[in-house]
Amino acid sequence: MLIVLKPDVTQEEIDHIVSKIRSLKLEPYVSRGVHRTIITIIGDEDVLREQPFEAIAGVESVKPILRPFKLVSRETHPDRTVVRVGDVEIGANKIVVIAGPCAVEGEKEVIAHAQMVKKAGAQIFRAGAYKPRTSPYSFQGFGEKGLKYLAKAREETGLPVVTEVIDPRDVALVEEYADMLQIGTRNMQNFNLLKEVGKSKKPVLLKRGMSATINEFLMSAEYILSQGNRNIILCPRGIRTFEDVTRNTLDAGVVPVIKDWSHLPVIADPSHAMGIKAYVPAAAMAYVAAGADGIIVEAHPNPEDAISDGQQTIDSAQLVSLIERLGKLARAMDRDIA
Amino acid sequence: MLIVLKPDVTQEEIDHIVSKIRSLKLEPYVSRGVHRTIITIIGDEDVLREQPFEAIAGVESVKPILRPFKLVSRETHPDRTVVRVGDVEIGANKIVVIAGPCAVEGEKEVIAHAQMVKKAGAQIFRAGAYKPRTSPYSFQGFGEKGLKYLAKAREETGLPVVTEVIDPRDVALVEEYADMLQIGTRNMQNFNLLKEVGKSKKPVLLKRGMSATINEFLMSAEYILSQGNRNIILCPRGIRTFEDVTRNTLDAGVVPVIKDWSHLPVIADPSHAMGIKAYVPAAAMAYVAAGADGIIVEAHPNPEDAISDGQQTIDSAQLVSLIERLGKLARAMDRDIA
Amino acid sequence: MLIVLKPDVTQEEIDHIVSKIRSLKLEPYVSRGVHRTIITIIGDEDVLREQPFEAIAGVESVKPILRPFKLVSRETHPDRTVVRVGDVEIGANKIVVIAGPCAVEGEKEVIAHAQMVKKAGAQIFRAGAYKPRTSPYSFQGFGEKGLKYLAKAREETGLPVVTEVIDPRDVALVEEYADMLQIGTRNMQNFNLLKEVGKSKKPVLLKRGMSATINEFLMSAEYILSQGNRNIILCPRGIRTFEDVTRNTLDAGVVPVIKDWSHLPVIADPSHAMGIKAYVPAAAMAYVAAGADGIIVEAHPNPEDAISDGQQTIDSAQLVSLIERLGKLARAMDRDIA
Amino acid sequence: MLIVLKPDVTQEEIDHIVSKIRSLKLEPYVSRGVHRTIITIIGDEDVLREQPFEAIAGVESVKPILRPFKLVSRETHPDRTVVRVGDVEIGANKIVVIAGPCAVEGEKEVIAHAQMVKKAGAQIFRAGAYKPRTSPYSFQGFGEKGLKYLAKAREETGLPVVTEVIDPRDVALVEEYADMLQIGTRNMQNFNLLKEVGKSKKPVLLKRGMSATINEFLMSAEYILSQGNRNIILCPRGIRTFEDVTRNTLDAGVVPVIKDWSHLPVIADPSHAMGIKAYVPAAAMAYVAAGADGIIVEAHPNPEDAISDGQQTIDSAQLVSLIERLGKLARAMDRDIA
Repeated sequence: MLIVLKPDVTQEEIDHIVSKIRSLKLEPYVSRGVHRTIITIIGDEDVLREQPFEAIAGVESVKPILRPFKLVSRETHPDRTVVRVGDVEIGANKIVVIAGPCAVEGEKEVIAHAQMVKKAGAQIFRAGAYKPRTSPYSFQGFGEKGLKYLAKAREETGLPVVTEVIDPRDVALVEEYADMLQIGTRNMQNFNLLKEVGKSKKPVLLKRGMSATINEFLMSAEYILSQGNRNIILCPRGIRTFEDVTRNTLDAGVVPVIKDWSHLPVIADPSHAMGIKAYVPAAAMAYVAAGADGIIVEAHPNPEDAISDGQQTIDSAQLVSLIERLGKLARAMDRDIA
Repeated sequence: MLIVLKPDVTQEEIDHIVSKIRSLKLEPYVSRGVHRTIITIIGDEDVLREQPFEAIAGVESVKPILRPFKLVSRETHPDRTVVRVGDVEIGANKIVVIAGPCAVEGEKEVIAHAQMVKKAGAQIFRAGAYKPRTSPYSFQGFGEKGLKYLAKAREETGLPVVTEVIDPRDVALVEEYADMLQIGTRNMQNFNLLKEVGKSKKPVLLKRGMSATINEFLMSAEYILSQGNRNIILCPRGIRTFEDVTRNTLDAGVVPVIKDWSHLPVIADPSHAMGIKAYVPAAAMAYVAAGADGIIVEAHPNPEDAISDGQQTIDSAQLVSLIERLGKLARAMDRDIA
Repeated sequence: MLIVLKPDVTQEEIDHIVSKIRSLKLEPYVSRGVHRTIITIIGDEDVLREQPFEAIAGVESVKPILRPFKLVSRETHPDRTVVRVGDVEIGANKIVVIAGPCAVEGEKEVIAHAQMVKKAGAQIFRAGAYKPRTSPYSFQGFGEKGLKYLAKAREETGLPVVTEVIDPRDVALVEEYADMLQIGTRNMQNFNLLKEVGKSKKPVLLKRGMSATINEFLMSAEYILSQGNRNIILCPRGIRTFEDVTRNTLDAGVVPVIKDWSHLPVIADPSHAMGIKAYVPAAAMAYVAAGADGIIVEAHPNPEDAISDGQQTIDSAQLVSLIERLGKLARAMDRDIA
Repeated sequence: MLIVLKPDVTQEEIDHIVSKIRSLKLEPYVSRGVHRTIITIIGDEDVLREQPFEAIAGVESVKPILRPFKLVSRETHPDRTVVRVGDVEIGANKIVVIAGPCAVEGEKEVIAHAQMVKKAGAQIFRAGAYKPRTSPYSFQGFGEKGLKYLAKAREETGLPVVTEVIDPRDVALVEEYADMLQIGTRNMQNFNLLKEVGKSKKPVLLKRGMSATINEFLMSAEYILSQGNRNIILCPRGIRTFEDVTRNTLDAGVVPVIKDWSHLPVIADPSHAMGIKAYVPAAAMAYVAAGADGIIVEAHPNPEDAISDGQQTIDSAQLVSLIERLGKLARAMDRDIA
């Protein structure tokens, strides 16, 4: 950590800061320049991070040197993590496609949707039983009944299922039925929920918060890992910016950063990134070309009848075509598709 | 709602959309122009909002006409809401000051902090027993013990207390001790938590999500109101933008919009908006000048020893001076300070 | 255009608005609903756009129906535009690579840089003679001398050159030497400069403003086209958001939108989008996978000695490898590389 | 400057960096920690800033210590600058109000507008002769004729006038007529234009770019100052964020930062910050409460007939009322109004 002092800092103020640092059993190095005096502290930034040095008289700014996460970092874990969901490996050489409707829409429906997805060539089925909706008057999901339908869909098709959990009270129930737990964008910093899924044995698909920085995204994964669950998949899904033509702004640029900093696999969500079905395939291609290990995409046999998110949901023919294009792309990158 | 059709829309597509609208028992009006055909639907936008018209072939875009919230709107409730917390009225003519440290730091400490705050002239005491922290390795709060200390602080000083609740499982416990429940910025769209506090009888201080639009902010209040709890105070606290000199970007501009659209009172948080204690008083003045009914500010006798957020915490002398300045400002605006 | 009236609008106010619209020789349609009355005007939005309807008593909001641009739109020009720069076609089936250092660094240097770029397989050479720098104390470019060096580099290598023009007074001079004029991100709304290059016969590479919406980006192209110059290439280069790990946020998501709305070709800039050389190749891949017709990338034989932007500049080996990877990608997308 | 090295940096790489720094005649200090080695360089950051240290093998990140501006800084010029425009002092104790329509609308009109503004109590008149418009089909201003009308309006009323200059070729002409030159938000980084007004003797009102950071804003002022013109007024005018209810997001929070870092006065623009006339007065109050030395506001006798920006333009009665409220506010802050 580096502490930059104000130009008019007094010797008394410097002495106070130095003694404060020593009281933490760390050694400060004071360097005096023409314009500024700075104090360098090499040591455990976790201890330092908790100290409000900026609150001390004479301090102009504080600059951390280390990134705040550890367990998710490639520095502490150089080998890439491969997460298994059922028989599917995520983070290995093959690109993985997760597809399905936004919401579980009924028992017959969800089975038909899973069959469509399987036939198109996807490896994992997605559908929401609990739906976090912006409006209290919107459909909130089938809940436990929806989980049971999902289990039926798995039985019928053999596809593992991923579904969202939005409440720490529901984690035990959801993990009974699902093969992978999804943490949604609005819950990326619901820390008690992160702790609960961190105690689960099921893999976790962690969506990026809609305005989360990369550091915050990785710190949320760190929460889960710190509870013992190593099976985490990071899911970029677009971020909120000034641009309003698309629902969010495609964040394909985070993929190489995450791959550089962390050992965790990346599955990206082009549907929420764009919010408009015509642009979803191009977004999926961009994510994979940037290095993602796969995509999670909203698909429905008849998007105009989807209970939610129909405007960003691709249909069966589009899914088939997308998977074919992703396969070609994967092979051009010396990867393959599952 | 207005549906704009693509320039090359076919008659068949128009007929399909029209019949879809009629099946919802609504009446569409089709207007043909030189460049575009549009369909206007005057009626219940709640029904329309659930329909993914953008997913239908021939549709270019959909433009809602009504705002999505109701109970929080001045259209359905023209009189301004005044919320009582203990003996303090929020939303009436007098400006209210809520102050205290970020976290409950111990029994003796919290009593001393409440006494400091009372002496400086604030009307409500704040301190967190549950702390949502970006890092799993940071101090997470005293929990229930902290709530008990808060109750002691109230006994000693007579000040009502507000404290954050971050988990739906804790609402019953927190409302036993607190006079007002705070929903933090990371939980503004934790809908299950909103539903729980919506069933509480205690007032709720709802912080704006760090990248929430005004519509989303009011929809979260709508969640609480839809459960029966009318005692809601909206709390702008800065938003996340490209500017990184300050922790967030001061969002004083939302105050007149909220006051125009909603009947709910506004208490703003200049500490999180700026993140740097030297700039907190100017931010507090800006919020109140823009029409806020008061502020919630982090204050601590010795900010450099604060357990968290010390860099944005003002000290006792600054709090006294700020309250004096806010009093003058309030009177210049034909208001007063409590 | 749709005008939404306030719930308490009076008949007199409605009459006033209606007569205002009729005075523009347009026909308003008034529809009364339960919650709102709206006025629909089908007709020339250019006339309407200039009218401040929001300023009129009784008006709640105004919703345009048509997009504001015309000449750049596929509606008025369905065929894709192919721009020729020297012998290179931009916007045809083959992906084009433009490469070179940020700045012209001297006569010998620029020739060596162009030779490196040619050898690596790029088709067009880039280097700046005029440098818009954030600081007045930074190197501002070689100016006219730099243009002459560029012409030499073209002679030596046969590669066409693109270089930035930053002042309307320099357009005549720059077009004497350059094969394509670049409008930089800070000048995307320097309308007088746009008008000048609009009168030029040379192709224009128009960079997206760092916080420009897609509509504004296309309106700036419209400025150039409205002066008669049809040879415009749109250049996404990242946008400014809250994320600060990368210099900008990669805007690969605009590519499918631009391709849908406009007939103009797209060359994207992964160097400025990321700002960190290690992430530039992944960003280039993402842009092309999203549908871009090529990339413009900063390359230098020895980035640590580059006069500017060294941190985001790839070296010769990285350029060779990137072009090879882009070739494979192009072929996987049924395109090719020049 | 601080250079953080990668965890796997080699001794050879460290030696190379050290010799590079020494070749700049600066002295590096190498500190080895458990997790990272860092190199501190205390000295002239201007020299360092030009070096792309991030491009060198082994470097993880570079952290500057000093802010990049000098002449605009309070460190080099502790006394506050007061700028005189005609007889009006900007930056002294009295709050200043600049008002007028967006555009010069004709000779008679501009005189009537200036009279209205004077009668309402404003001290300086504003109106644009050159209008930077997003669309090439919108009214672009009266140009030189408009400047002459402005001079007439000054003669008639005695009010000094401020008007925008958008082209380096027009600076000589505009300064013949105007008392203060305005640099608009789209030209904040039109560096050649900044250099031209930097050579002028007339005061410059520099608007913040719509997505400019505070550092960039001050660096643009530095450009002007570096050419010899010390009479600069900084003008916050809202920034672009994800919020789209208002035209921009009110940036009142930059006022205390600018006042802390720079000696230059601040006049803020609430009209463009909000974009909706009903919210302009609250925004003006917020800016002044945050410490601004005055405001520049769009006002017109009949906003619905304004040639541009009518939706954000207040009328005569609103201007009178606003100035009265600002006067009360100023006195409550121990200031006054001119």
